[in-house]
Amino acid sequence: MTISTKPPAGTRDFLPDDIRRRQYVIGVIREVYESYGYVPLETPTFENIETLLGKYGDEGNKLIFKILKRGEHEHTGEADLALRYDLTVPLARVVAQYQNQLPKFFKRYQIQPVWRADRPAKGRFREFYQCDIDAIGSTSPLVEAEIINAVSEILVTLGFNDFTVRLNHRTVLAGLLNAAGVSADLHGGALVALDKLDKIGAAGVHQEFLARGISDAAAQACLKLFESRAGEPPAETLSRLAGVLGADDRSVRNLSEIVAAASAKQIRVDPSLARGLSYYTGAIMEIAVADLAGSLGGGGRYDGLIGMFLGRDIPACGFSLGMERIIVVMTERNMFPATVAGGGVDIMVTVWNEALQGDAVQLAASLRQGGLRVELYPEPDKLGKQFKYASSRNVPFVAIEGDDERAAGTIAIKDLKSGDQTSVARSEAAEWVARRLQAELRTEN
Amino acid sequence: MTISTKPPAGTRDFLPDDIRRRQYVIGVIREVYESYGYVPLETPTFENIETLLGKYGDEGNKLIFKILKRGEHEHTGEADLALRYDLTVPLARVVAQYQNQLPKFFKRYQIQPVWRADRPAKGRFREFYQCDIDAIGSTSPLVEAEIINAVSEILVTLGFNDFTVRLNHRTVLAGLLNAAGVSADLHGGALVALDKLDKIGAAGVHQEFLARGISDAAAQACLKLFESRAGEPPAETLSRLAGVLGADDRSVRNLSEIVAAASAKQIRVDPSLARGLSYYTGAIMEIAVADLAGSLGGGGRYDGLIGMFLGRDIPACGFSLGMERIIVVMTERNMFPATVAGGGVDIMVTVWNEALQGDAVQLAASLRQGGLRVELYPEPDKLGKQFKYASSRNVPFVAIEGDDERAAGTIAIKDLKSGDQTSVARSEAAEWVARRLQAELRTEN
Repeated sequence: MTISTKPPAGTRDFLPDDIRRRQYVIGVIREVYESYGYVPLETPTFENIETLLGKYGDEGNKLIFKILKRGEHEHTGEADLALRYDLTVPLARVVAQYQNQLPKFFKRYQIQPVWRADRPAKGRFREFYQCDIDAIGSTSPLVEAEIINAVSEILVTLGFNDFTVRLNHRTVLAGLLNAAGVSADLHGGALVALDKLDKIGAAGVHQEFLARGISDAAAQACLKLFESRAGEPPAETLSRLAGVLGADDRSVRNLSEIVAAASAKQIRVDPSLARGLSYYTGAIMEIAVADLAGSLGGGGRYDGLIGMFLGRDIPACGFSLGMERIIVVMTERNMFPATVAGGGVDIMVTVWNEALQGDAVQLAASLRQGGLRVELYPEPDKLGKQFKYASSRNVPFVAIEGDDERAAGTIAIKDLKSGDQTSVARSEAAEWVARRLQAELRTEN
Repeated sequence: MTISTKPPAGTRDFLPDDIRRRQYVIGVIREVYESYGYVPLETPTFENIETLLGKYGDEGNKLIFKILKRGEHEHTGEADLALRYDLTVPLARVVAQYQNQLPKFFKRYQIQPVWRADRPAKGRFREFYQCDIDAIGSTSPLVEAEIINAVSEILVTLGFNDFTVRLNHRTVLAGLLNAAGVSADLHGGALVALDKLDKIGAAGVHQEFLARGISDAAAQACLKLFESRAGEPPAETLSRLAGVLGADDRSVRNLSEIVAAASAKQIRVDPSLARGLSYYTGAIMEIAVADLAGSLGGGGRYDGLIGMFLGRDIPACGFSLGMERIIVVMTERNMFPATVAGGGVDIMVTVWNEALQGDAVQLAASLRQGGLRVELYPEPDKLGKQFKYASSRNVPFVAIEGDDERAAGTIAIKDLKSGDQTSVARSEAAEWVARRLQAELRTEN
């Protein structure tokens, strides 16, 4: 029997260039979140199974990877642990467990993989990273405003210039459905239909409203009330909503305060934004990018979830950035800086012969002390073969120290792009290479 | 039923200060490995179960966390996936899968958690990080020399000054056992006994040799041949070994070449070093720290393992740093720089009242643009309460912008340690704080 050497279905091996792209994106996300006062948290890969079951609905339950009990219990087929399905439920557990150690306003970011046993498809994985921020402990609209500002700053820093932050409110959705004459028992179905507006258009949603038992008149009223007008300034949309729900409607006032406090210019109040998850209780938001189906992330306020673990409600608001999609789009659009990829090595030290291999190690060490990333060719070999290997790894420079160089106290440094070879004093070699690398960087940018 | 909010047995939640310590250690490890030309790799959390089974011996098999099949197959109790048990088997799979994409000399580092269903105990976890380097494709002693140098550099950078790199060779072990008159079928048991020398001493090992069927004469000869002499220079130990195994013994020559090429000063050739894992074929090494039972990491050459996946052997040598132990020792010895811990926030912006909360968001944004990490108090509140909150989070400065300050274009900045309050021009506030923070850092160091 031969064992497959592919990674399991729906998972990926990340080779060095993949990791560098991922580290770049994670670095930007982390730096911005830290600048907003979010602090890092990490939780275990698996949770006790009862922590996760029942938190994600029937469909979610089916997608949870379950771990067999160990030892003699293995044969019962019983599972007692399960892989993390998202970062929100573990956060709720952590808030309940460490409530006395955590600050009153706990703002954390968490960047870790999650696992869902979805059918693998293009761009859909069973193991993927989530990048979440959540702010616990305050109902203030400043919380939402800062979340919107932080997320917008990340996207701008990564080079996105065509995104919108769609903003809506759970109570606005309910108010508009009531105003359209949809009875409360049909709200859930109506929101599921509305959530597909992007994909199937107004006519499709109309059909689905009817199929879900909503009258033609109510369906038409809905489509009018939920109309999303591209380019409409938030203040105008809000006054449209106030016209329907009343000037002192609390959810409209909440949205107005969020918009007023946020400095991000990309906000659009969008009455048709529904968001799938049932635990949201207030403002909801989602990032849309022109010409891209689906979103780059979403979130909202959920003032009830933590109470499931703690026994008393604590207000909370969070946002999950879609890192995997961000990386896909940045790769397709060629948005990564040139410096992100590459072999990660500045210079390769050749090994002249066996007698001099100890000197090669010493040379590599001294170049590293000078701040360079140095590959040492691991064994004596024909110089031509060593050059060819360095070329194949995209190493820009190669250092040669033969008998002549040793006698003269110099190093021969070959620029593999131009083919030029220069003799440099051994003690100045690291600085010489560093200067050349910086000059090239300036030319590229 | 109340659900436990503790993390599962043997796993840990990492709160912000924990993460900062871990990130510091990982940062040093990564930077040194990158400077040696190692490139990053990450593999999935779980592997197909047949990839892992049979690679770690019977004991290892029992410690593997297995994942239930999903959907209708769940009820069969069958497992098709399993959590990563180490980083070496996934590497072997990756080398086989991507052999045409990877360089001939593939040197990778991998820093990811692994899972073992060991009985949890103090300092022993079921989820813990491994930090591995492996160099694939060369049998040269320069590979071992560079691994020793890199690992030593990491430990020195982290502040360890009392460690030794114990170095031995699998064939030396076999040669010494033969020389002592231990028959080949008893070698395995003899090595298991020898491995306990640190824990149970020479007398204990002697007893265990006898219990394993080794004659008293052979046992005594063993203890003499395997004697490890603290402070003995490598050259002397090597000539002792050459005296027993012959001047041209290949394994002694190999060790001599490794010692000659490595620049790390902490090497000690130790004939008693056995290392548990059965897949080693050449040099083996382990980090010992004075007054510390167990090691901070270990590794060795394994020229046969990759062949299990690839069908043909490829030489390889690797080292696994014990990051969890390193963190435990550094915490106990108070080795972390003062800058590693802390709230991670430079200044907190207070919210004067509801009318001015938008201005507070703007002030926070402008301080962030000046490079500061800024926490915004999320809601209007009594100033005293806001100060107290900042104090509890160890934030060094607090910014206040009331009506007077707005009129004058200034910010009041309060130093929470000294209690001093200073009025600073709004446009110069970020720079003022940055200067003060740097000055404090200089005083602390």
